[in-house]
Amino acid sequence: MPLRGLLPEEIAAVDTMSTAECWRALNDAPFGRLAVGAADGVDIFPVNFAVNSEAIYLRSAPGSKLVDIAHSSSVAFEVDGADGEEHWSVVVRGIAERLIHDRDIHGSGVLQLKTVTSTAKHNYVRITPTSISGRRFSATPHR
Amino acid sequence: MPLRGLLPEEIAAVDTMSTAECWRALNDAPFGRLAVGAADGVDIFPVNFAVNSEAIYLRSAPGSKLVDIAHSSSVAFEVDGADGEEHWSVVVRGIAERLIHDRDIHGSGVLQLKTVTSTAKHNYVRITPTSISGRRFSATPHR
Repeated sequence: MPLRGLLPEEIAAVDTMSTAECWRALNDAPFGRLAVGAADGVDIFPVNFAVNSEAIYLRSAPGSKLVDIAHSSSVAFEVDGADGEEHWSVVVRGIAERLIHDRDIHGSGVLQLKTVTSTAKHNYVRITPTSISGRRFSATPHR
Repeated sequence: MPLRGLLPEEIAAVDTMSTAECWRALNDAPFGRLAVGAADGVDIFPVNFAVNSEAIYLRSAPGSKLVDIAHSSSVAFEVDGADGEEHWSVVVRGIAERLIHDRDIHGSGVLQLKTVTSTAKHNYVRITPTSISGRRFSATPHR
C-alpha cells in the first residue's frame, strides 16, 4: 500500500457549493456539529439547530457545554451528508451570542409561533455567520 | 408547533459508548471533522485520517489550514454515523503536534509499509487523545 493510501490528508474539494446551496443544505440537515473555544481548548459536539433569516439558532439547557461560548464568541458550525458516492460539507464560521432578553428571543422571529415552555429555563444562542462555504468531495478518496 | 419543536437544543444522548466502541467507530469512519483554534477564531473542516496505536494521524499539504494548529495545540476531532434510526457521535479531544523529523514519522508506525512519496512535501500531524467519548442518539428528535 502506498503512503498516499496509508496516511490520508485533508480532503480536496471536488466542487464548491454556492451560498444558496449551502443554505439549502443547512435547512435540510438533521443535525450539525458546533465547534467552540472552551476554557481548556477546542470542543465539538453534535447539536440540533434551527435556521431563520440566514442565522443559526440553538437552545441549550442550563449548565451545558454551550455556555463555553462565553469564553469565545467565534464559533464554527458544520453540516454534511452524502448524495450517493458524493459527500458534501458546509462550514459556517460566525459569531455566537446568547440572547439575553425576551425581546431578542422573540424578535429573532424564531418564536413567532406559540410557545409552551418558559424561555427562562434555557440559553438561547444565535450564530450570525461571517462566512459560509461548502464543498463536495468523494468519500474515502485515499483509502 | 411547540417551542420545543421550533428551537432545537443540544442533542441528549440516548446511550454512551464504551472506549472500545469509540475506537472501533473511529477505525471504520470514512472521514472525520477536525476543529482547531485558528488565528481568527475556531475553524472546522472535514479530513481523512488514519488510526494507529490509539492516536489519530493526518497529513496536510503545505500551506493548508492545518497549519493553524500551530496557533493552538488543543484540538477536537469528531466522527459520526447512523445505524438505522439511531445516530452515533464520537468526539476525541487531544493535543496535536506536527511530526517534524522523519524518525518520528517513521517511528509512529504509520509508515511501516512502503512509501512512494517524499515526506518532505507534507505536514504530518499526530493527535494524541486526552479524552474520548461517544454517544448514541435519535436523529432529529425535536423536528
